[in-house]
Amino acid sequence: MNKGLLIVISGPSGAGKGTIYSQIIKRTDMKRSVSVTTRQPRPGEVEGVNYYFRTEEQYQQMIAAGDFLETAEVYHNLYGTPKAPVFENMKNGYNVLFEVDVHGVRSIKKKYPEAVAIFIMTPDFKTLEQRLRARGTETEDSLKIRLGAARRELSEYKLFDYIVFNDEVDLAIDEVLDIITAEKRKIINNEEKIQALLAEQDEE
Amino acid sequence: MNKGLLIVISGPSGAGKGTIYSQIIKRTDMKRSVSVTTRQPRPGEVEGVNYYFRTEEQYQQMIAAGDFLETAEVYHNLYGTPKAPVFENMKNGYNVLFEVDVHGVRSIKKKYPEAVAIFIMTPDFKTLEQRLRARGTETEDSLKIRLGAARRELSEYKLFDYIVFNDEVDLAIDEVLDIITAEKRKIINNEEKIQALLAEQDEE
Repeated sequence: MNKGLLIVISGPSGAGKGTIYSQIIKRTDMKRSVSVTTRQPRPGEVEGVNYYFRTEEQYQQMIAAGDFLETAEVYHNLYGTPKAPVFENMKNGYNVLFEVDVHGVRSIKKKYPEAVAIFIMTPDFKTLEQRLRARGTETEDSLKIRLGAARRELSEYKLFDYIVFNDEVDLAIDEVLDIITAEKRKIINNEEKIQALLAEQDEE
Repeated sequence: MNKGLLIVISGPSGAGKGTIYSQIIKRTDMKRSVSVTTRQPRPGEVEGVNYYFRTEEQYQQMIAAGDFLETAEVYHNLYGTPKAPVFENMKNGYNVLFEVDVHGVRSIKKKYPEAVAIFIMTPDFKTLEQRLRARGTETEDSLKIRLGAARRELSEYKLFDYIVFNDEVDLAIDEVLDIITAEKRKIINNEEKIQALLAEQDEE
């Protein structure tokens, strides 16, 4: 069996990466990763499904043990992607899909350079601004901050392998799925199978 | 406009590369390349559509001038892929699709390393043998020769970027199209566009 791939999608707030991520998880057998967090569970959240809930002390021990692919602080809570379940899924032939920020991509690429990183962007910044405005939840200040952050994120494009311009979300989902298919067909991901075929067919 | 890609498909006789090639040319706006040849035109063949027909002397002059991406001799006739129309199409944003043998792939990769090379293979050698037998045109000897050649071609897999196992031809066509989409989304093929977006959105 071929080993699964680790696919990471990222991109600015408003570009649609969350929708693309959840649709792909819904439509395919790709595995998502369950994060570890130090924040308190909210009503209805289930350990091991929504998150692995850990104390700050436990979390720090996991960091020290090198258990994370990436870890980040958000509003004084820690969130991290544990390595073991991800690599277990990949060993079993499943592709694993992550949605992380650009710092997370850098961290994952450092620990696992074979990870495939896809940047999700709107066709241009004007469209990004329109989509953020359409949410109706942004002030002029927060809009400015988000657009500045988006520009900084895009300027790190060299971290990524692919960029998908999300004009129409169903097309963008298809393109991400095409990228995953193409990655599975890479020679480098089929060497074992090719070697096995060649070994079966020894020259007579 | 993004520059077009040069996509090369190859693989053993019987694996279905010819069908995949012609279906993709039919269904997409990809450009094929018209070969130059020294063989005599057959009835109905049109200069510049089927081939560019040249004398042996003219052909040798083209070789000397470095006009070819690849050239090969088949049954005492020369066949070659002229560079100029291919690069002209790519400059105009068209992807160009070739069907060549493994030697052709090596030659093209040498002259244009950005070429994307896709190996078309049956799921295994047994299937290849069955498909060759089903043609009803192979003797036991020619079958043996073709299977030996197929093994040698597959053993050169490191020349290629991708491998598509052609089990059901419509799926194989889709996979080749997915690979082409993925290649178009590679960061390396979108740097100009990304730079332009960043330039428009200078930090305030």
